[in-house]
Amino acid sequence: MTSTHDIVVDQVQESRVGTTNFDNLIFGKTFTDHMLECTWRDGKWETAHIKPYGPIMVEPSSKVFHYGQAIFEGMKAFKDAQGNVHLFRPEDNWIRFNESAKRLAMPTVPEEIFMDGLKKLVDLDREWVRQGDGVSLYLRPFMIASENGVAAAPSTEYKFMIVMSPARAYYRGDVRVIIASQFSRAADGGVGYAKAAGNYAASFYPNNLALEEGYQQIIWTDAATHEYLEEAGTMNIFVRIGDKLLTSPHNDRILNGVTRRSVIQLAKDHNIDVEERRVSVKEMNEAAANGELKEIFGTGTAAVIVPVLGYKHEDFVHDLPAVDDSYATLFKQKLSDIHYNRVNDEHEWLVKI
Amino acid sequence: MTSTHDIVVDQVQESRVGTTNFDNLIFGKTFTDHMLECTWRDGKWETAHIKPYGPIMVEPSSKVFHYGQAIFEGMKAFKDAQGNVHLFRPEDNWIRFNESAKRLAMPTVPEEIFMDGLKKLVDLDREWVRQGDGVSLYLRPFMIASENGVAAAPSTEYKFMIVMSPARAYYRGDVRVIIASQFSRAADGGVGYAKAAGNYAASFYPNNLALEEGYQQIIWTDAATHEYLEEAGTMNIFVRIGDKLLTSPHNDRILNGVTRRSVIQLAKDHNIDVEERRVSVKEMNEAAANGELKEIFGTGTAAVIVPVLGYKHEDFVHDLPAVDDSYATLFKQKLSDIHYNRVNDEHEWLVKI
Ligand SMILES: Cc1ncc(COP(=O)(O)O)c(C=O)c1O
Ligand SMILES: Cc1ncc(COP(=O)(O)O)c(C=O)c1O
Repeated sequence: MTSTHDIVVDQVQESRVGTTNFDNLIFGKTFTDHMLECTWRDGKWETAHIKPYGPIMVEPSSKVFHYGQAIFEGMKAFKDAQGNVHLFRPEDNWIRFNESAKRLAMPTVPEEIFMDGLKKLVDLDREWVRQGDGVSLYLRPFMIASENGVAAAPSTEYKFMIVMSPARAYYRGDVRVIIASQFSRAADGGVGYAKAAGNYAASFYPNNLALEEGYQQIIWTDAATHEYLEEAGTMNIFVRIGDKLLTSPHNDRILNGVTRRSVIQLAKDHNIDVEERRVSVKEMNEAAANGELKEIFGTGTAAVIVPVLGYKHEDFVHDLPAVDDSYATLFKQKLSDIHYNRVNDEHEWLVKI
Repeated sequence: MTSTHDIVVDQVQESRVGTTNFDNLIFGKTFTDHMLECTWRDGKWETAHIKPYGPIMVEPSSKVFHYGQAIFEGMKAFKDAQGNVHLFRPEDNWIRFNESAKRLAMPTVPEEIFMDGLKKLVDLDREWVRQGDGVSLYLRPFMIASENGVAAAPSTEYKFMIVMSPARAYYRGDVRVIIASQFSRAADGGVGYAKAAGNYAASFYPNNLALEEGYQQIIWTDAATHEYLEEAGTMNIFVRIGDKLLTSPHNDRILNGVTRRSVIQLAKDHNIDVEERRVSVKEMNEAAANGELKEIFGTGTAAVIVPVLGYKHEDFVHDLPAVDDSYATLFKQKLSDIHYNRVNDEHEWLVKI
C-alpha cells in the first residue's frame, strides 16, 4: 500500500488487462483492475481508497435500495497517437456531480477526492485506455446512500466510488424515436436536471413500449403540455431547421450536457446559427412537412453524436432526409479530433493525465 | 435447512429477540432474525430462500446503484391480546408492488413468493411481534436491479427481498407542513403512483428546506400549476372542511394508499361525507380564513394517522383549531381496534398468520 495526496492505494497483484479481449467488449460490462471508494460518515469524507475492483458488502436495509439516493456521472478518457491519455472537460462533470448531490440531499465531493482520485485511478489503469477512433475508457463516478435503516429520511452515510470500463467504438444501430405524448421523464421543480439514478429507471418502461413499436429511443417533452421537446434517455437533442440549429435551454427538467455545451461552442466556431430556446413539436412537424427539417441528433458522452433517422409523433411519422452537409457528421468529426488530440485544443477541453 | 412450499429455510442458530430492547427502538434500525431473498434470472424467479438477516455482496456496477430500478412496500403485522399475529390488507400491498414493478420495467412477483414468503417469514419471527397499542412489526418487501453493468437499460437480473423491523408506538412529534409552490414530487405520466425508490430521494432536499423553516413535512401540489393538493412524503392527505372530508383522487402522480382506502371506507361506515376529488389550495386557504377548515391529516402505514397542526402556503400561515369531534382521532382509534383485533373485522382486512 502506498499513499498519494491522502488517497490510499492497494494495487492488484496481477492486472487483468492482458487477458481482456478489447475487440469484443459489451458496453459497461468489463471493468478495469482498480476502483476508488470513499466513505462519508459523521459529517465528513474519510480517506479515499483505490483498491482492486470487486464486490462490496451492503446491508439489505441500505438506504440506496429503499429511497434511491444515488447519483452518477459519465465521462471518458482517450488515448492519442503519441500514447498520452486525456480526460475531456472533467471539471464540468465534477461540478454537475455536486449539483446532483445537492438536489438529492447528499454531501458534495471535494475536488481532492473526485478529481485527484479520478486522475490517480486513470493513471494507475492507463493500460486499459486503448488507441483507436471511437475507443475510450468510460469513467463512472457515483455516490450511494449507505446508512442502514428503512426510515424515509436522508442517509447519514454515503459511499462515493469510481469504476471504469473500457469501451470500443460505439455503434448504436439505426435510431428512430418516438416523441413523448403520454409519459414523461421529469417534473417542473423535480430532479430531471440531476443525474439521479431514479430518473433512468422511470424511463425504462416507456422506452420498452417504444422498442416494441420499433423505435429505439424516446424524445421527452414537457410533462405539463407535451408541446416542447426536452431530451432523450441519455442525450440532449438538437434539431436543424433549414441551416439553423435549435436546442432546448436547460432547466430543472433537462440535464445540462457537456457534449451539448461543446456542440454549441463548435457551432459558434463554425459560424453555424445556433439558438437555445424552446422547440415546439408543432414547429418541428411543420418543418418536416414542408421539407425544412434537415436533421435531428442526440448528444451525450456515451455515444457522442447520434443522428436520428426518423420519428413518430402521435399519428405523424417522418423519415429524415439524407443531407450532404450534415451538422451531426461535422460535430462528430470535430469532437473526435479534439478527443484524440489531433487538432489544436483551442478551448482547453483536454486534461492530460 | 427445511423446505416449505418451495421456500428453502435456513434458520439462525440463536435468536437475537431475547437481547433486543423493545422499549428503545429507533424506527427501521433493528431487524429480525431472518430475511427472504429470491433472485430473478434468465426470465424467471429462482427458489426463494429464508436465511439469517445479514449483508449481501453486490458489485459496484450493480444496476440499482446507477439507474435506480428499486421498488418497495411497507406493511405491518400486529399481535392481538390473545397472542395471534395478523397482517393488515397484505393483498393490497402485493398488488401495488406489482404495479410499481410494471412501471419500473421490473418483473412482477408471484403470490407464492410474495405472500407465502411473507407469511412464512412472519411466522418464523413471530416472537418479534410484540403486544401493545401502536406496537407492530414493520414489513419491508423490496426489489432491486442486480445485474452488473453500467449500460442504461433495464436490468436482466433482480433480487426480491423481505426484511422486517420491530416498531414501537410511533410518536412523530408535532407536524406542521409547507404547501409546495416551487418543488414537486411527481410528473404527469411519471412514476409518482409507484413506490419507486427514486421518488423519495427526490423529496429529501425540499423537505430539508422545510425543516430549516420549522416545518416537518411538505404537502406536494401538482407540478404543472401548484394549485391542487396531492400527498405528503409517505402519507396521503385528507382535509376536513366543515364536516366534509376531502382527499385527492389517486392518479399517476399520487400513491394509492392502503390507509387512505381504509379511512375512506371507515368514513362511509360512520356516515361521514367523504369526497375523492381535486382539492385546491385556494379552497383550503379560503376555508382556513373563514373558519371552515377543521382538520388536515395524513394517512400511511408507518404513522397510521397524523394530524397536521398548521401549515404555510407562500405567505399564508395558518394554525388548525382544536376540534372536539376529531375525525383523525376517530379513524386512528377505529384502525387500531381493527389492527389489534379488538372489534369485529367486518371488511375482512386482517389475515391471520
Ligand atoms: C438525461 C441525460 N441527458 C443528456 C445527457 C448528455 O450529457 P453529457 O453530454 O454530459 O454526457 C446525459 C448523460 O450522458 C443524460 O443522462
Ligand atoms: C408517497 C406515499 N404516499 C402515501 C403513502 C401511504 O400509503 P399506505 O397507506 O399504503 O401506507 C405512502 C406509503 O406509506 C407513500 O410512500
